[in-house]
Amino acid sequence: MNVPLSIADYERLAEERLESGPWAYLTGGSGDEWTLRENRAAFARWTFRPRVLCDVSEISTATTVLGTRIEIPVVVAPVAYQQLYHPDGECATARGAAAAGTGIAVSTFSTRSHEEIASASPGVLQWCQLYVFQDRGVTHEHLVEVAAAGCRAVVLTVDTPRLAQRERDLRVGFEIPSDLPLPYARAAIGDAPKNPADQFALLDASVSWRDLEWIAGESNLPIVLKGVVTAEDARLAVEHGAAAIIVSNHGGRQLDGVPATLDALPEVAEAVAGRVEVYLDGGIRRGTDVAKALALGARAVLAGRGPVFGLAAAGEDGVRHVLELLRDELTLALCLLGCTSPDELTRGHIQRTAT
Amino acid sequence: MNVPLSIADYERLAEERLESGPWAYLTGGSGDEWTLRENRAAFARWTFRPRVLCDVSEISTATTVLGTRIEIPVVVAPVAYQQLYHPDGECATARGAAAAGTGIAVSTFSTRSHEEIASASPGVLQWCQLYVFQDRGVTHEHLVEVAAAGCRAVVLTVDTPRLAQRERDLRVGFEIPSDLPLPYARAAIGDAPKNPADQFALLDASVSWRDLEWIAGESNLPIVLKGVVTAEDARLAVEHGAAAIIVSNHGGRQLDGVPATLDALPEVAEAVAGRVEVYLDGGIRRGTDVAKALALGARAVLAGRGPVFGLAAAGEDGVRHVLELLRDELTLALCLLGCTSPDELTRGHIQRTAT
Amino acid sequence: MNVPLSIADYERLAEERLESGPWAYLTGGSGDEWTLRENRAAFARWTFRPRVLCDVSEISTATTVLGTRIEIPVVVAPVAYQQLYHPDGECATARGAAAAGTGIAVSTFSTRSHEEIASASPGVLQWCQLYVFQDRGVTHEHLVEVAAAGCRAVVLTVDTPRLAQRERDLRVGFEIPSDLPLPYARAAIGDAPKNPADQFALLDASVSWRDLEWIAGESNLPIVLKGVVTAEDARLAVEHGAAAIIVSNHGGRQLDGVPATLDALPEVAEAVAGRVEVYLDGGIRRGTDVAKALALGARAVLAGRGPVFGLAAAGEDGVRHVLELLRDELTLALCLLGCTSPDELTRGHIQRTAT
Amino acid sequence: MNVPLSIADYERLAEERLESGPWAYLTGGSGDEWTLRENRAAFARWTFRPRVLCDVSEISTATTVLGTRIEIPVVVAPVAYQQLYHPDGECATARGAAAAGTGIAVSTFSTRSHEEIASASPGVLQWCQLYVFQDRGVTHEHLVEVAAAGCRAVVLTVDTPRLAQRERDLRVGFEIPSDLPLPYARAAIGDAPKNPADQFALLDASVSWRDLEWIAGESNLPIVLKGVVTAEDARLAVEHGAAAIIVSNHGGRQLDGVPATLDALPEVAEAVAGRVEVYLDGGIRRGTDVAKALALGARAVLAGRGPVFGLAAAGEDGVRHVLELLRDELTLALCLLGCTSPDELTRGHIQRTAT
Repeated sequence: MNVPLSIADYERLAEERLESGPWAYLTGGSGDEWTLRENRAAFARWTFRPRVLCDVSEISTATTVLGTRIEIPVVVAPVAYQQLYHPDGECATARGAAAAGTGIAVSTFSTRSHEEIASASPGVLQWCQLYVFQDRGVTHEHLVEVAAAGCRAVVLTVDTPRLAQRERDLRVGFEIPSDLPLPYARAAIGDAPKNPADQFALLDASVSWRDLEWIAGESNLPIVLKGVVTAEDARLAVEHGAAAIIVSNHGGRQLDGVPATLDALPEVAEAVAGRVEVYLDGGIRRGTDVAKALALGARAVLAGRGPVFGLAAAGEDGVRHVLELLRDELTLALCLLGCTSPDELTRGHIQRTAT
Repeated sequence: MNVPLSIADYERLAEERLESGPWAYLTGGSGDEWTLRENRAAFARWTFRPRVLCDVSEISTATTVLGTRIEIPVVVAPVAYQQLYHPDGECATARGAAAAGTGIAVSTFSTRSHEEIASASPGVLQWCQLYVFQDRGVTHEHLVEVAAAGCRAVVLTVDTPRLAQRERDLRVGFEIPSDLPLPYARAAIGDAPKNPADQFALLDASVSWRDLEWIAGESNLPIVLKGVVTAEDARLAVEHGAAAIIVSNHGGRQLDGVPATLDALPEVAEAVAGRVEVYLDGGIRRGTDVAKALALGARAVLAGRGPVFGLAAAGEDGVRHVLELLRDELTLALCLLGCTSPDELTRGHIQRTAT
Repeated sequence: MNVPLSIADYERLAEERLESGPWAYLTGGSGDEWTLRENRAAFARWTFRPRVLCDVSEISTATTVLGTRIEIPVVVAPVAYQQLYHPDGECATARGAAAAGTGIAVSTFSTRSHEEIASASPGVLQWCQLYVFQDRGVTHEHLVEVAAAGCRAVVLTVDTPRLAQRERDLRVGFEIPSDLPLPYARAAIGDAPKNPADQFALLDASVSWRDLEWIAGESNLPIVLKGVVTAEDARLAVEHGAAAIIVSNHGGRQLDGVPATLDALPEVAEAVAGRVEVYLDGGIRRGTDVAKALALGARAVLAGRGPVFGLAAAGEDGVRHVLELLRDELTLALCLLGCTSPDELTRGHIQRTAT
Repeated sequence: MNVPLSIADYERLAEERLESGPWAYLTGGSGDEWTLRENRAAFARWTFRPRVLCDVSEISTATTVLGTRIEIPVVVAPVAYQQLYHPDGECATARGAAAAGTGIAVSTFSTRSHEEIASASPGVLQWCQLYVFQDRGVTHEHLVEVAAAGCRAVVLTVDTPRLAQRERDLRVGFEIPSDLPLPYARAAIGDAPKNPADQFALLDASVSWRDLEWIAGESNLPIVLKGVVTAEDARLAVEHGAAAIIVSNHGGRQLDGVPATLDALPEVAEAVAGRVEVYLDGGIRRGTDVAKALALGARAVLAGRGPVFGLAAAGEDGVRHVLELLRDELTLALCLLGCTSPDELTRGHIQRTAT
């Protein structure tokens, strides 16, 4: 293969580079992987309605998320254990993201701290993805450190009171190396648990809407709820003070049988009615995917596997190039839709695919 | 293969263990096997609407069927001739079911009597699946023995006035061994008929609604009608005093072209309107399948092939493990749906899949 | 293969027996063969609504067509050139049909005359399929002979003003043997044309509604219109005195892109509203197909390829067995639907398949 | 292969004849080639409603486009760089089109001038496909020459402010030979750019509705807008004086995710309401495709790849034969639909396919 032309090319490169365990963990889903496949399939259920003879000689893909300008409406999603994919882990991802003009959400199971990431990539937009441990002291420390490190939002994942079974991991015998640095989770985990299920078993399954107050009290950061897929929960999120919602099904890795995120987006966007920002993750592989999500009401998307394919294939440069591919493809899509910026994308630019 | 992770794993193990005849009989359907495939395909036509930030730290899968508590909303369906799959036949199945906290429906074509089963697995919940023979004396004896053995319900199968042709059986030349014990059917069959079609030809195709009275008169047990798939018949069942309905198409083994049971469930549940309990069988392979059936109005499901794959692969332990897999998967599904028990599952937790 | 269990089995046997030319001609469709495939696919778009606990101990498949009793609601469709498939041609087909208690529609391109057929199978129900030649004298003779031979209806094919191109025939170089007897067409054709397209080019493409009068004047037989697929034409057929309509797309061999006949049947049946009998052909391979057509408003079906697979595989006996398979499968379907005769099948026994 | 029977046959012949670069460029689409596939798939989403017993002994496929009679409602679409496919390039295409009684749209990236084409095929109907260069002087010269050469319309392509990335081209390393004659584009391009993306980068992405006036001022020819797929733009086109609209997605080569043209046609035809002529391109491979487009409101279609398959396979004769295949297939379709001319095709002859 010569220069990769698409995220699909990076996916093939990553598969060549990675051992079976990390590859299974990165790409697999839960159960029968129905939702995993649906996340991709849903994009084909929506088609564009392009407008012609607009002046599209100047196009910008820039937007803001929670008030911060990013050059593309794509943030790197919180992917756990990134040192599995590249020796520099989240630091390389952050440098790639920064080079592409955007930021990174850092997992509770990150192998690098926000301080290390800020040091490697000064000024990069960082969000803190939060899992609440049964040991609330660990979570308290996590939130304190995060605020100190210049993090700009807490992304509370709400679709993981338990970790779903992912058969691919079990079939290849995937284990987390016991020396993997986990600055925010190791205190809770200790040395023993080597598989994700055991590590995640330490999370607090009792977290409910009223815990949002506690989190808000521990940190002055805006709270983003990740994992909402219904109008009812979207309305509750707004009522409970969430600053934004990520329509997410955890990349098809939690409850198998949940809708594709693109299919859930319209009902969430409608329920929110512009009161908070709405993002989407799941299945983003093309700039046209980004455009479809934006036309259906998302302000931005998060992309996880795509940038990590780049990370595994070529480190920081791979992350950057993957994001640039999305940028270039989105620029083209905007141009051919008759739009000069993400803001111009409307519900009128998209419709259900004919069947 | 190491420890089986799913019913699909048990299916592969069972295929390795069984001769072609029993395998064909167990897994085949009638006609072109369209309904057989639809039973599975229908689960993908419904997707979940999970709710987040509920306290799901404590989850129970227990429920009751006809007033009897079971630890999982899954009863083992009546599968004929179980000695074909394991030397201990229905006794092993019952022990496995009991170990998993549930019960077993025992076929008229069982190779073990209810007494033998009760002896092997004291206290296990047993239901008697009933076919009415042309020789009503045989059926009279059946009902008398069943009541004496502590059976708690009569499950009258109403979709089999004739046995459908199952080409797989004929192509592999499947025959019932002439020495197979059939405590409830042998008196009617005698020694000769070696294929299911001939044995079933002795059933009474004239059985109609007014025969329910006769059956009720022969036994004080509640009557469950198995094989109802329309609102019209569901209403008639209620009017004729049925205690429960099983939405069933005989596992795709009777009329090919009948809807998947999951597709028929909503109309039956709506017609019944809570007046009697509604169960479903057909295509249950995952805990998420159970959750979808419950969300659409079923109180419990019956699983046939799944537990018998376990039986063929590992006897009693296999049955138990298959049921535990369903329990664990259902527990996870409840948790990720924001529910702490089967009762909390509602029609609002499910919707048609986007197309 | 042992005893064939289904029409699909006969299809495989026929393929083994026939040369590539006759096989291509028998099984091929026009254009991209989309309609050919749709004819089969449409049956999966309708599912049954079976009723239970009806007394189905006695079942009859008998019905009448235009007042003549037949033991199954299946007539053998007019298939041209049957000597290509068996030395006895239409005579063997008629004997097989008679043995199964039904009749045969005899093509204008039959290789046996109605007299020969009547002699081989005394009393068999015969219909005359009519193409109108540009040389009306040939058609006049055809109608005169037919009436004298005891034929009971004229089946005017209205979907073939020109013969569609069938690429399979051309690719294998299929030609009609020049010595093939064609008692009703040879006078028009003469000796030269060896491919169906040339033979059919002699038909009169100007035939229109007003020609029905001429045909009626040449014969006192009831006229059946074969090839109607719209409500508009169905109403015109009734207004112009047709005795029956066959919803047909010529087995997917004429205009590619026409709907499956099962999809067209409801609109035709509704438009006709019982004023004339409605039949269907196209894609009949199972007794359940027959049941679906009847539930949607057909009084009977015509089956072409199925019986001819039997003819090619085993002559008269093959035709009889194919029809008996349909009879047995239909009997089972009626039984499992809770019906004791074709008349009891209603629109309520069928619904669109869930998607 | 003997005589090609269909455009699919010509496609296979062309693939054998062409090098990988031109083949990729000719047949590829943009992105994931979803729209490319949809263009074909959409034809299967519409089925015919044929009328019977009409007098169809005389059938004509002739029609007019912008007042010019053509023998078939098919014009050759503007395909760039035709010398890549045959040494005589557009001259051979024009001769083939003229032999079939129709005309050709000549690309801005044509390898032959309108004068050369007129000289090779005197009197052939020529339209000028127009891209507007940033260097308006080049476009001015183009329009002047075109008017002088007897061209009858300007076809302004409005879906290409930028060229979409076509991965197939990049994977095979396709380049435009630097000595390829480009009478209308070379002045803007100069010698260097060897790939289509670089050549097309010289187009003016600022062209908007108000530029139609400038174009109209440079030429007295009617302006046809190619690339409209929405009702909104169709109405604007009429308001801005367009003489006709081509519903086109650039053969699936521009924005991937745009609807199939056949799916977009009804909304455009309805919005236009007969005020200007509507044509369609994209996916035309069969005469039945033409018939479907006409029934849905197109006056004619443009076919690009099909005729160029003929060009690559057999030069002028191949183009002619491809168009004759479409003519013969359309004649058959009209005949079997009960129509004697394109004008008789109505919305009532087509409906959505059952699903």
